[in-house]
This record gives sequence, C-alpha cells and structure tokens, in this order.
Amino acid sequence: MATNNSGDSTMFRIETDSFGEIKVPGDKLYGANTARSLMNFDIGGPTERMPIPVIKALAILKYCAADVNRKYGLKTDIADAIQKAALEVIKGNLYDHFPLVIWQTGSGTQSNMNMNEVLSNRAIQILGGQLGSKTPVHPNDHVNMGQSSNDTFPTAMHIAVAMEINERLLPGLQLLHDALKQKSEEFSEIVKIGRTHTQDATPLTLGQEFSGYVYQMYNGIERVKNTLPRLYQLAAGGTAVGTGLNAKVGFAEDVAAKIAEFTGIPFVTAPNKFESLAAHDAMVEVHGSLNVVATSIMKIANDLRFLGSGPRCGLGELSLPENEPGSSIMPGKVNPTQCEAITMIAAQVMGNHVAVTVGGSNGHFELNCFKPMMVSNVLQSVRLLADGCVSFTKNCVVGIKPNCDVIQRLLNESLMLVTALNPYIGYDKAAIVAKTAHKEGKTLKQAAVKLGFLNEEQFDQWVKPEEMLGPKEYKQS
Amino acid sequence: MATNNSGDSTMFRIETDSFGEIKVPGDKLYGANTARSLMNFDIGGPTERMPIPVIKALAILKYCAADVNRKYGLKTDIADAIQKAALEVIKGNLYDHFPLVIWQTGSGTQSNMNMNEVLSNRAIQILGGQLGSKTPVHPNDHVNMGQSSNDTFPTAMHIAVAMEINERLLPGLQLLHDALKQKSEEFSEIVKIGRTHTQDATPLTLGQEFSGYVYQMYNGIERVKNTLPRLYQLAAGGTAVGTGLNAKVGFAEDVAAKIAEFTGIPFVTAPNKFESLAAHDAMVEVHGSLNVVATSIMKIANDLRFLGSGPRCGLGELSLPENEPGSSIMPGKVNPTQCEAITMIAAQVMGNHVAVTVGGSNGHFELNCFKPMMVSNVLQSVRLLADGCVSFTKNCVVGIKPNCDVIQRLLNESLMLVTALNPYIGYDKAAIVAKTAHKEGKTLKQAAVKLGFLNEEQFDQWVKPEEMLGPKEYKQS
Amino acid sequence: MATNNSGDSTMFRIETDSFGEIKVPGDKLYGANTARSLMNFDIGGPTERMPIPVIKALAILKYCAADVNRKYGLKTDIADAIQKAALEVIKGNLYDHFPLVIWQTGSGTQSNMNMNEVLSNRAIQILGGQLGSKTPVHPNDHVNMGQSSNDTFPTAMHIAVAMEINERLLPGLQLLHDALKQKSEEFSEIVKIGRTHTQDATPLTLGQEFSGYVYQMYNGIERVKNTLPRLYQLAAGGTAVGTGLNAKVGFAEDVAAKIAEFTGIPFVTAPNKFESLAAHDAMVEVHGSLNVVATSIMKIANDLRFLGSGPRCGLGELSLPENEPGSSIMPGKVNPTQCEAITMIAAQVMGNHVAVTVGGSNGHFELNCFKPMMVSNVLQSVRLLADGCVSFTKNCVVGIKPNCDVIQRLLNESLMLVTALNPYIGYDKAAIVAKTAHKEGKTLKQAAVKLGFLNEEQFDQWVKPEEMLGPKEYKQS
Amino acid sequence: MATNNSGDSTMFRIETDSFGEIKVPGDKLYGANTARSLMNFDIGGPTERMPIPVIKALAILKYCAADVNRKYGLKTDIADAIQKAALEVIKGNLYDHFPLVIWQTGSGTQSNMNMNEVLSNRAIQILGGQLGSKTPVHPNDHVNMGQSSNDTFPTAMHIAVAMEINERLLPGLQLLHDALKQKSEEFSEIVKIGRTHTQDATPLTLGQEFSGYVYQMYNGIERVKNTLPRLYQLAAGGTAVGTGLNAKVGFAEDVAAKIAEFTGIPFVTAPNKFESLAAHDAMVEVHGSLNVVATSIMKIANDLRFLGSGPRCGLGELSLPENEPGSSIMPGKVNPTQCEAITMIAAQVMGNHVAVTVGGSNGHFELNCFKPMMVSNVLQSVRLLADGCVSFTKNCVVGIKPNCDVIQRLLNESLMLVTALNPYIGYDKAAIVAKTAHKEGKTLKQAAVKLGFLNEEQFDQWVKPEEMLGPKEYKQS
Repeated sequence: MATNNSGDSTMFRIETDSFGEIKVPGDKLYGANTARSLMNFDIGGPTERMPIPVIKALAILKYCAADVNRKYGLKTDIADAIQKAALEVIKGNLYDHFPLVIWQTGSGTQSNMNMNEVLSNRAIQILGGQLGSKTPVHPNDHVNMGQSSNDTFPTAMHIAVAMEINERLLPGLQLLHDALKQKSEEFSEIVKIGRTHTQDATPLTLGQEFSGYVYQMYNGIERVKNTLPRLYQLAAGGTAVGTGLNAKVGFAEDVAAKIAEFTGIPFVTAPNKFESLAAHDAMVEVHGSLNVVATSIMKIANDLRFLGSGPRCGLGELSLPENEPGSSIMPGKVNPTQCEAITMIAAQVMGNHVAVTVGGSNGHFELNCFKPMMVSNVLQSVRLLADGCVSFTKNCVVGIKPNCDVIQRLLNESLMLVTALNPYIGYDKAAIVAKTAHKEGKTLKQAAVKLGFLNEEQFDQWVKPEEMLGPKEYKQS
Repeated sequence: MATNNSGDSTMFRIETDSFGEIKVPGDKLYGANTARSLMNFDIGGPTERMPIPVIKALAILKYCAADVNRKYGLKTDIADAIQKAALEVIKGNLYDHFPLVIWQTGSGTQSNMNMNEVLSNRAIQILGGQLGSKTPVHPNDHVNMGQSSNDTFPTAMHIAVAMEINERLLPGLQLLHDALKQKSEEFSEIVKIGRTHTQDATPLTLGQEFSGYVYQMYNGIERVKNTLPRLYQLAAGGTAVGTGLNAKVGFAEDVAAKIAEFTGIPFVTAPNKFESLAAHDAMVEVHGSLNVVATSIMKIANDLRFLGSGPRCGLGELSLPENEPGSSIMPGKVNPTQCEAITMIAAQVMGNHVAVTVGGSNGHFELNCFKPMMVSNVLQSVRLLADGCVSFTKNCVVGIKPNCDVIQRLLNESLMLVTALNPYIGYDKAAIVAKTAHKEGKTLKQAAVKLGFLNEEQFDQWVKPEEMLGPKEYKQS
Repeated sequence: MATNNSGDSTMFRIETDSFGEIKVPGDKLYGANTARSLMNFDIGGPTERMPIPVIKALAILKYCAADVNRKYGLKTDIADAIQKAALEVIKGNLYDHFPLVIWQTGSGTQSNMNMNEVLSNRAIQILGGQLGSKTPVHPNDHVNMGQSSNDTFPTAMHIAVAMEINERLLPGLQLLHDALKQKSEEFSEIVKIGRTHTQDATPLTLGQEFSGYVYQMYNGIERVKNTLPRLYQLAAGGTAVGTGLNAKVGFAEDVAAKIAEFTGIPFVTAPNKFESLAAHDAMVEVHGSLNVVATSIMKIANDLRFLGSGPRCGLGELSLPENEPGSSIMPGKVNPTQCEAITMIAAQVMGNHVAVTVGGSNGHFELNCFKPMMVSNVLQSVRLLADGCVSFTKNCVVGIKPNCDVIQRLLNESLMLVTALNPYIGYDKAAIVAKTAHKEGKTLKQAAVKLGFLNEEQFDQWVKPEEMLGPKEYKQS
Repeated sequence: MATNNSGDSTMFRIETDSFGEIKVPGDKLYGANTARSLMNFDIGGPTERMPIPVIKALAILKYCAADVNRKYGLKTDIADAIQKAALEVIKGNLYDHFPLVIWQTGSGTQSNMNMNEVLSNRAIQILGGQLGSKTPVHPNDHVNMGQSSNDTFPTAMHIAVAMEINERLLPGLQLLHDALKQKSEEFSEIVKIGRTHTQDATPLTLGQEFSGYVYQMYNGIERVKNTLPRLYQLAAGGTAVGTGLNAKVGFAEDVAAKIAEFTGIPFVTAPNKFESLAAHDAMVEVHGSLNVVATSIMKIANDLRFLGSGPRCGLGELSLPENEPGSSIMPGKVNPTQCEAITMIAAQVMGNHVAVTVGGSNGHFELNCFKPMMVSNVLQSVRLLADGCVSFTKNCVVGIKPNCDVIQRLLNESLMLVTALNPYIGYDKAAIVAKTAHKEGKTLKQAAVKLGFLNEEQFDQWVKPEEMLGPKEYKQS
C-alpha cells in the first residue's frame, strides 16, 4: 500500500495532527482529524452522516470568513483559494469528502475540522501544493482563522436551518395552505353535516370545514416565522467560550453581514455569544413551531382520510385521488396513502421535538454538547415536513373531490336539523319528531308528517340547512 | 333523607335534566348535569379537579356574556343576577360547587354545564326563587345564551391561560431575569476559568457566564409573548360547530370586547371559529414556549448546582444560600434544593408538552375532544414555572455568592493560560511548558521558570487572564 | 399569638432544627423541617401536594423499621409508640399533617423529615410527652433509625407504586380485559366489514375485531407484571450513599422482609443499593409499561368512538351507552364521553412518561434528585389508568350494543365481497362487476345480474361473507 | 430512450400494474408499484430509505414462505428460484433495487411490493424469462402467495428488530456491562468521597460507584430480553385483516417455524393476528426498554464526564482516554467525546420513543398505518445504542484510569469524615471541628488538633474512611 498524492482510492497518504501521523485514502481531501473520527466513531453507518445542509452551511461560513479575513490580515491568494474551494462544497461537488457521522463529539468539532481539512487541501490543490502539507493553506491558521469549532458549528446550525426553512419549509407550507384555501373556496356552497365528538351535529359548508385547515396552516407559517429572529443570530466571533478570544474586533459583525449578503437571509451577529454556544434554545424554539405544524397536519390529514373513508362503508364525503393500486381485487379501493405518509411525518416530528428538547436542556457551562444531534433532528423535521407538504398537496389535496350525493344524503338523514322546527311547532313536539325518527329509522320529514305536526311543504320550507350556517341578525321582538 | 332547599349538606334536593331526575346535595348549587358527571367520571380523586383558573375564566365569560346579552334580549334583572353570581365565582367564593374532574367529556361540556347550573341557581337565590326550578334564571336559556359548550370551554381555556401567563408567569420570569442580570453585573469583574465539554477552557468573567443565563431568560420572555396574539383569539360566538348558529350577529365581537375590558387583556374574537373549536394549536404553541423556557431553566439550574458543588470536593466556585439543614452531621453541606425543585419542574413541563401535543393532534372534524386535559397541563406548567421562578429567585439566585478564592485558585492552576505565552516564547516552547506542568503537577509558572524559558516577573506580566476576555483590535503588522 | 401544646390551630408552638427555632401551628404534628420547607417551597398550591400513596408508603416503612429496630437496640415502648403512630397515618387519619408539595428537594428529604416529625410528635403524645420536645421519641434517632432520606424515599417510591399497581391498576386492567372478552364472545357470530387504511376491506366478525382489543389488554397486564421484579427491590439499608453506613448488618434484609409481610407484596432488599439511590430506572421501566397500555387504550377507545359514530352520519355499527344528555336538542345524540375521558388519560400518560424519563436520566453521582417528580407522575398515571379503566368498562364497554342492521347493510353494500366470485366467473369478470357497481352506485349483486354473469340465486350461493373469516384447508388439485 | 431488458441504466423497460404501464430503469429489478411509489413519495431524499434490516427481513420471510408454499401447491422450480433470489437479497447483493423511502403508505405495502417485484424479476432472470413479464414467477401469485402486505410488513418488522437486537444490541450492552464490571472490580479498593445532591457526602469505593452502573446495565439487558416474547410473535398468516383469508390452514404456523429455523430465533405465530396488524404494541414495548437503557446510559456517561472533568479545574477523579486532539493549544485537555456521542444517542432514543408511541397509538380498525415510521425508529435506536455501546466501551470505558492522588486529596479534605469522631469526642465537639474547618479553610485534622480536642495520632486512628463503606455488625451494649 503506497503513499501518494494522486487521488487514487487504492492508495493512502499520511496526514498529521498533534497526535501524530495517520493514513488517509489517497482520493480523499480530508485529513487526520477526520480520519481519527472515522476510527473512533463507527456508529450507525452511512445513513447517519452529518446532514448535507450542515456541510453546505459550514462551507458558506468558511467562504464568508475567508472573505472577511482579508481585512484582518489573510493574504489574498489564500483567501481566494479558500473561497474557490468553499464554493465547490457549496455547489455539492465534494460531499464524498465529508464522511463523518452525527454521533461524534457533541460540539461538532470534528465536522468543523473535516471542513477545514478539505478546504485547505482543496485550496492547496488549487494553488499547486502538496496534499496534507498544510501549506500554503493551513486548516487551522487560515481556514479556521478567527474561529473555533465552538462558534463555527452553531453558526452552521443556524445557517443550515434558516436556509432549509426559507428554501423548503415555508414554500411547502404555503403550497399546502394555498391548495386548502383553493378547496375551501371551491367547496363554499356545499352544505354538509357537522360532526362533534365524532357524532352528528349541526351543519356547515365543506368550505367552512376546510377554512379551519386553512387557518391552521396560516398560523403555522406565522409560528415558524416568529422564531426566525432568534435563528438569524449567529455565534461566529464567540470563538472558544463566547468571549471572542483570538478573534478581532469587528469580525463577528462583518462575518454575519457577509453571510447575510451571500445567503440573502438577514443574519446578524448574536447579541450574547455565551448563550449562543452554551444553549441552543433557538433550535428548541424553532422545533417547537414545527411541533405545532405537526399537530395541525395530523388533524387535517386524519380528517381527510376519515371524510374520504369508504367507498361504501365509511363516511364517504370526499374522494381522495387514486395514485396507485390499492388492491388487485377491489376496484374503487383508494388507500389514503398520502395522508399516511404525512401523519407518519407528523409523529416523527413530535418525537424529534423531544430529542431536541432533551439535548437542549443538557448543556453545561460554556458549551452545549448535543449540537450535531440537535441540528440533525431539526433539519430532518424541516425536510420531512417540507417534502411531505409538497407531496400531500400535489398527490392528494389538489385532487380531492366532494361526493355531493353522499354529502347531501347524510345531511338529509341527519336528525339534528329538527332544531329548525322549534320556532314553528315548539321544542317538545320537535323532540318527539326526532325521537320517533331515531326509533323508527325514519327521516325527520317522514316522522313529522306521520305525527301530523306539519305537511311536507311546510317541512321543506322550514328546514333549510343552508340557513343554519351562521349567526342571525338580532331582531327585537 | 329529605329533599329541601335549605343548603343543609345532609339533605338532598331533586334536579332534572333531559335524562330525568337526580338527587343533588342540598348545600350545593350545581344541578343534574354536574351530579351525573360525578357519577360517571369517578376518576383520580380530588387532586384531579378542573383547575381553578378554568372555573374563574368560565365565570368571566358568563359575566361578560350576560352583559352583552342585554343587547340581544336578555332581561335586565336576569342579566344583573347572573353577573352578580358570576362575580362571586370570580372572587373564589363558590369553588366548592365545582367538583368535577378533568377526566370528563373531552369538550368540557360538563364543566360548562356545572357553571351554568351554579350561576342559574345562585341567581335564582339572589332573585328569591327556588333552587333547581330553573326559573326565573335558566341554565341553558339564560346563562348559556348565545353559547355552546363547544365555544365556551375553548374561550375559557384561552382566558385562563392568558390570565395566568400575565399575572403569574411573565412576572415570575422577569423576576428571575432581573435577579440574574443583577448578579451578572455584580460579577462583572470576577475572572474565572471557562469550561467547555465540562473541561477546562479559556477564561471569562463570572458576569459574562451569567449574562448567557440572562439572555436565555430574556429570550424566554419574548418567546412566551410571541405566542400571545393567537392565545388572545376567543372562540365565543362559534357555538356548536363554529358557524355561530343560534348566536346573534355581533355577539362574538361584543363578548370578546367585553372580556378584554374586564380582564385588561387585549382579547379579540377569533377570525376563524372552525379552527378555534376543532384544534387547539394555540395551546400547543403556548406550551412550546414553556418548553423552551424549561430547557433554559434546566441548563441554568444545572450550572448553578455544579458551580456550587462542594464545599470541598466539587467545583466550589459559588456558594448557594443555605435555606434548611442539609444534614445534621455535616456543617457546610448546602444542598441545592431550589435547583432541584426547579429542574423537577422543568422535567414536568417537558412531559406536559408531550401530553398537550398528543391531545392537540387528536381532534376530529369540528371538535377537539382533549380540551380539559390540554388546558390543565398548560395551566400546571404555567403555574409551576411561575412559582418555581419566584422561589428559585428569592431562595437561591439573589443569595448566590462567588467564592473568589476558589475561582482565583482554579484560574491560576489552569493550564490553558499558556496560550498567552505563544507570542513571547513561541508555540512549541509553550506546549512544552503546558505538558511539563500537566505531567509534573506543577503550575504553568513553576514549569516555565524551571524550564528556563522565562522568569517569574515575565510570567506575571505576560499571562493575564483579564486580557483574554474579548476580541482584540486588529493591528496591521 | 401564644405558644402551646394544645392542638389549637390559632396557636403556635416552637420547634427546632439545626437552623434554630421556628413557629409551627399548634394543631399540627409536624416540626421545624416541614415548616421550613413550607416557607421555602411555595410552589403550585394544594393540588401539588405529595401524593397520599407516598405518605402511606413512608409510614409503612417507618412502621416496619421500628419493628425491625427492636432487634438492633430500639426500646420496646418507643418502637410500640412509633408503630402505633405509623398505623394512624397508614389508616389515613393524619393526612392534614403532611402539607409539603412535590416541588421540594429532589431527594424527598423534607417529606421523610415530615414523616419523622409527625410520627415522633404523635408517639410523644401517645407516651404523654411534650410536642416538639423530641423526647422520648426523637425524629432522627428513633423514627429514622438506620435510615437516611436517601434510602427511605426511594423505598417509599417502590412501595407506593407497587401497592397502587396491585390494588388499583391490575384489577382495573383486568376488568377492562374481561369486559372486552365477554363482548368478543358475545359478538362472535356477527359478520361485519373490515377496514384497513380506514377503507373497506375483507370481512371479519365483530368478535374477532374485539379479540384484538382483548389481546392488547392481556399483553398490557403481562407488560406491567414483567416490570414488578425490579420494582419489588427496596433501597432501605443503603442509607446516605448506598454503602449502608450507620445501618446494621441485617437491617436491609429484615426491613424488606417485614414490609413484604405487612403489605403482602414480595418485596426484597435491592441487590445493589448504589443503583437504587442514584438511578430510578425501575420507575422509568414501570412507566414504560403504562405507556404501552396507554397506546393500546388510545387505539381501542378511538375504534369504539368511530364504530359508534352517528347515529345517522357516521359508521354507526355500535351503540355506546348513553350516560348523560348529549344535547338538549337532539335525541339520539350520544357523545362517546367515556372514550374521551380515557383517551385524554392516555395522552396524559404519554406525557408523564417523558417527564419520568427526563427525570430518570438526570441523576448525578450517588443520588438522583428528581424523586418526588418521578414518583408523582408514575402514581398519577397508575391511578388515572386504573380509575379510567373502571369507568370506561362500567359506563361504556359493558353497555355496547351492535347495530346489527347497520352492520349487515354495510357488509352487503361492500364491493370487496366480489373476491368470492373469482373461482366462479374469473378475476376479469369479477373486476368488471366491482367497477360497474362502484361507478353506477349499485350493489355487487345488482351489477353482476345486470351484466348477465350470474343470477340472483348464484350470487347468494357464492358470495358468503361468513365463509371469508379464516384460512381454508389446502386441497391438492 | 429505448426499452429493453439488458440491465443498462440508460435504458428503460415497461412494467405494468392495474393502473397501467410505467417506465422502469432498465438496470433495476423492481416493477410498476415501486416506480409509482418513487413518483408519489418524493420525500426526504436517500437518507430516508427503508432501513436495510427491513429489506433483509422481508427477504427472509419470502424465502421461508416460498419454502413452505411447496406444501401448499407452489411448484418446485418457482419456489427454488424465489428462494435463490431471496438469498441474494439477504446477502445484501441487491440493495440498489430497493429505493423506496420510509414515508410511503403506512402499511409498508409498497416495500412489500418492491420485494415481490424484485424477487419475481430476479427469479425470472434465473429461470431465463423476460423481466417484467411476471412469468413464470408472478410477484403476487407466487412471491406473495398466502400473504398480504398487511401481514408481511409487520412480520418483517418483528424479524428485523429481533435480529438487530440479538446480533447487535444485546452484545453491545453486554460489552459495556462487562467493561464496567471489570472496572468496578479493578477499582474495588479505591476509597473516594461520595456525592449526593452533587455535594460532598460520605465515602464509598470507586468500585462501589461503578457497581451501580454495572447493575443498571445488567437490568437493561434483562429489560430488553423481557420484551422479546411478544416480539417473537409473527403476523404472517393473518393476510389482509387478520382472519387469514386466502391463506391455508397451517401456513401461519409453518412459516413461523421456518423463519425460526432460518434465523435461529424462536419465532412463533402470533396467537391473535388482529392485534398483530392493527396495533404495534410490541414495538412500543421494545422501545420502552430501549428508553430505560437510554436513561441509564445518560446517567452513567454524565457521571463519567463530570468525574473526569478538569484536568485542573474540574472534579478530576478519573482520566478518560484521549482519542483525538482536544485542542492544538492545551495539552492535557481531553474532551469526553465518547460520552458526548453516547449521550446524544440517549437523547435521540428518548425522542424516537415518543415517535413510536404516537405512531402506535394511532392505528384504526384492522390496520395500524404508521408501520414504516415505527420500525425505522426502533431500528435506529437499536443500532445507535448497539454501536454507541461498542464505541463507548472500546474508546472510553476500558481506558478509564483513576487519578488516585486527586481522589485521595478530595477524600482527605472532605469535612464529612467528621462523623467518625462522634463516638470519641461527641457530636457537639465534632460539629465545632467541622464548622471551624469550613470557616477557616482547614482540614478536619488541623481544626481538631488546633481546638485541642485530640492529637494527630488519635485523628488518624479514629478517622478511617475505609471503615465507612458498609453497615456494621450490631453489638448489644
């Protein structure tokens, strides 16, 4: 097994850290810290790798820090090379060089060093140097200049989550909101039976029913947005314990501004860096808003699958789109699979919320050491909710059709419309009508006519569900 | 056993509902619905009663509804009597007449009827009528006028939680915040060792360390406040399914305005009543902010008990006030009991959050039927956090004293101050100093002098922890 | 305000501890430690008091310890008096003397001292001494002999939970199991449509459907029982840190044996006392079994309320008993209120589980300091599940009636019975039958006859849901 | 774009299902159902794929079912080919052909069909047929013979979790248990200060302290094992709703026996198939045991990092092995990174537990539709705990060294040893000694000698921590 610099995966080269030498695969850009972490944290396998948005966010930070550091003494050619290398990571070209798992040191130090190593080696390549030589671009002195793992990793946490929320989650939630709103308007004239305690109640329109879902989603979007001010506060500049030792005055503000410019997201430097390193309340807060969204979605998707249950033996008021064979035997069997996927996502988000909460509560002194676990849970929840909303909207909500005949039949059969007779025949006779209908399995009209309290025309005139859909004007008697 | 109206607890009177007659204790003001619930829900015993703030909030709603209903046809003397009775409940005089437990119907219907029954009977008493006669004040027709359990109970949920947050929680959080801030300022000159990964790190001031706690609490208050706009939206006027059937146009807005006036809290009518009845996302959201506060508090209280651990065999940097005998044997043993109480509260809040989330996700169609469970958990969390913060502040935080000698000793013994020597003797020699000190159990100064790299005066001049507390101005070299 | 010994609540007497003197209400038996805790932990109000089963369990421990301590030097008259006093507490006579809340020191020390103080004062009364004099019965030297709060409180936790499980929970679960089993047998001949994904599926009997619930409850009972061996291990004898310092050889075993004898529960001394004090994994484990029971119950109660939904616009296969007026307007509206109460309980148990887990994970070194919070959550879950099962069984399950006409109608209308035609007319024609029926809103029979694939008699002969209820014998063709 | 059968990834072939034709990549063995799921569930990306153990378990089921089905009419050559294909999946050769994500239909139907399609196509290849032709091996008629997704997927859930527990988790837990036990024995003579409430307390040996951890792990293994009987019950044979329709009498028992034989795990057929499909209480139960293990590990790892904190400014009683550079500046800074990884895992497990619980509680009627989410959480928890224990043991626990000088110094400095003087100089004088020592910063010995209560020799003779480690024999005075 030879050592070289050729990028051949069957070869190894020697990288060093303060512990000494270690072999690194010849085709990988990472260095000794990464290689040591791979040895020491053989946990969970490839599905447990540090999420890509964190890698990208770290690269954005390094890109911006290199730019800012020109002002604080970093040489132009080195800064240029680091920025070039960072852009490649941001574009997704070098993901194979970031093999570390979530389950490493709780500060994310090893992922920060992984980034420092890859960027320095890639910058060295760009500048024609020798991989692993740490010259002319040193992973610590240059790529990590003015930084510490303790401030870079939380900075990356905030950047990654903020970007995923803006790029994926908010559009996904909006898409679902808009589709529900469109349906609410489309269904505004369809009068249907209401259900409270799962039992028959007074009527409302299908549009009104959907308007509740719309408002849940509207609020959900507000809730997520309300958490962003604290998510937009960046730890960069706090260095090891929050004091900013070894950083320069101005670096914190400059790097936040640069990241804001690069991402188009209004990041600012955190007003208190001690909090930024030692606690991740902002993560717990953001995830709290996801948790509310999850409860909303669980409610909505449950309603839709029950309203769409059947086709013959359920409530059957809605038809959900048929996307795949439900069964090779039963035509007409549509399984509400999109509801199932998104309610599973909701359950996952509720679980992730506890993991984030437990992690958030267990910081000690100047550092919370549950960082990679926390951010990976937040990112998974964001991504699943975002993708889930898109899938649910496209493959289910937009295609929902009301089964107007079923809706009408159930409405007519309902006993609660009897309420409308109170002003005409009095509460007591109305009650007898309802009881008789229930006991004899008749409609209200049949019972009322049979009992001789009114005739068919009167019933049709007096019992109008479409007039039971809102408050009445008060008229002084 | 005789039936009468005398208020004698050994006697019974007959009350009726649509199920028929039922005996009620002669000295109780409630009626048949309440009595039936007591029979059917014998769950958990007296500690599981519906929380007092809910009872009070329901009474406030009834008080305001009676006032508003004058406009919509309620006779003045009846309205007056209902309001008078409601005021007695609000003042806490009639709590014995509300015996129902949380574990009843999930809409809180029985507690709404309990209130309707007590107020109508009390108003009947005031007007000189016969208890249980439902005349001249009827529990449904008058006390519940324009209302349904389905909108009154969620209205009471919002009123109760909003009042407890404003009256208890926010002041409690502010008290803790202020005390921590005062300590942060008091400790601003005390330089101490920092700890990351629980291990020795670079120094900071004790004031800086506390400033992180201050900012956590500051944010916590913001987080709670951010949830209030949706909490301030009231369901009243939505009646049975959200349509407002049987309510009058204007009632919803009027009653919200009246409640706002009565409580001094800016309640408004909910823009979408379907959401208000069918979901309680606002409860989940509010509790999400409590959950963040709980994680903050767990972190802060854990730090304080560890920093105060000892007196001889712990970190010993702080002295927490001694409030009770820790042990009859060991003088000087102070148990951090206030930290223990408040961290137990934090754990409880995290658990309650899951209960609220599960309840919030399980509504169906036009009604969520986990209402009493949800509100009781939110109220418990609010109360425990509020009281806990007051107790923790008064009995612990304000009395914290720094053990300056211990802080100074640990700072001096720390090896990480070696960093300050880098500019003078170079990294390599500094590393040898640190390694030698670690291996031989010496101080840095001893090691450095022994190694001949510098003399005592130089060490004292170059190694100044008080200059390691922030970023440095960049000076172009 | 005078000091006396008369038991007059308007008077005070002086009690002392190592902090000095403190006033105690004249009619209370507790002493200085309790009074100090009341001052220092004004948290949550009366509903947050230490649960009665813990008080009772502590008294049982003291009763048994006093008995055992005769062997280790405790004088007979003192032992007798302590035991007499303890029996009064066990009988519930002295509960007013235990005012402390859960939110105190995390070791439960103050509740242990509350017990020591009450028993010593009560024993002093019995022996004719002066309250507060600590003579002839000293709270520490005699009542707490061979004990420490650190081992007594966890011992009481185990005793309390074990007793509540045996006396309340297991009978409650069994009652529900038996009622479901009785229904499963009663419904064994009722063939009904199955539902998967909430959609129509192949048939089963209502008895088979209920048999799934029965098996869930059967397993639930097993699950709870499986946790008992570790719950039956008692910490007593471990004293302050688990070493048993100040206890005598044999005390641990003797006191466990005595408690086993007194309670009739096979308690043993814990094989490792360090674990017993520093961790409460046994509590987390026990609550884990409650968590499974909660998920089972949520499933069962949800099914029942949906199967009982209607009466006209739901699934309507079951009638749940009507226990209270659902509405003054609609006869026949039965709200599934018992389902609602027990599903709220299930949600609470899931939340409590997280509180217990968080508490259980946060012990440090020789002591877990989340004890009162942990035990109170476990006890609440046990009690609510126990009472909830009894209420649910008595007021709902035993009164469930099948609506055979609805069940039959839905079964007949279902399209999936077409499967039975495959052997006679082939899959392709069967599929056309089903599709036609679905499209034209016809029954399978109507569609098949209309299509000319068979006649009515053939349909009736070939399509027999009652033959679709189990696997078939394989016959070689 | 051409259609062919060549296995070229740039080509496509046509596969069909009851929805019609769909293009499938030419080099993939899956069919139309899988392709349709990929289109409809574009959620989460590659890290969200169905866990490999589920794929493997489904293949084991298909392998065994094919074997058993020979008895029920499946032709030998078809059975052979299916088994051959299944073995390839079991060996891990075909994982690229299983691209579906967890977030699909909640029954796992699509993953079952993915398996049916891949095995039928691979068997067709083996038999020389045309991919996608469904002949001579049909995915439904042959590979899925006697099965339904509704029973196969839960069967695979149980097989996968049972195998992972037996192959990974139990060995991992045992490894950690054994290493802690070895340390407990190694440290049996090292007397150290105890800590309760994080404060100094009476002494114990380091071995005793570790023995608590050992017993936690011992119990953890028992807890996991206790859940296995219900995990070993397989749903296979229940088919669509639990009745076993379309399966043959004997199939359920035969296939369970065959799986038991193949895996070496004592699987049996589930006694109630309705429960097996409609609920996954066994998953919730198993995860409950993982949740307890997580709390144990959180406690142990927290203790170790605090006991190992320092090197100068922490407790410093232990040295944890140094596995990677903690800092380029500070030699001797060892970050407890293995503790951090495993406590993050513990937090994740606690979160996953809630996800599993919520999913488990949300089944409806004959089917729980949270299956893929539930099993993936259980499998992640199993794997992370298993790998985490191995990593934690190898890279931390086995290398722990006691810092005997620190331990000894802290023990000597402790004030609580004063207890030992009580019999000689009396409690009052002992208290004065302790108070003086505390106030003046002296050792007990210094204070006692200075106060003239004893001389140095007497102190050394009377105060022996090594005699405070257990209960004493009772001697009648």
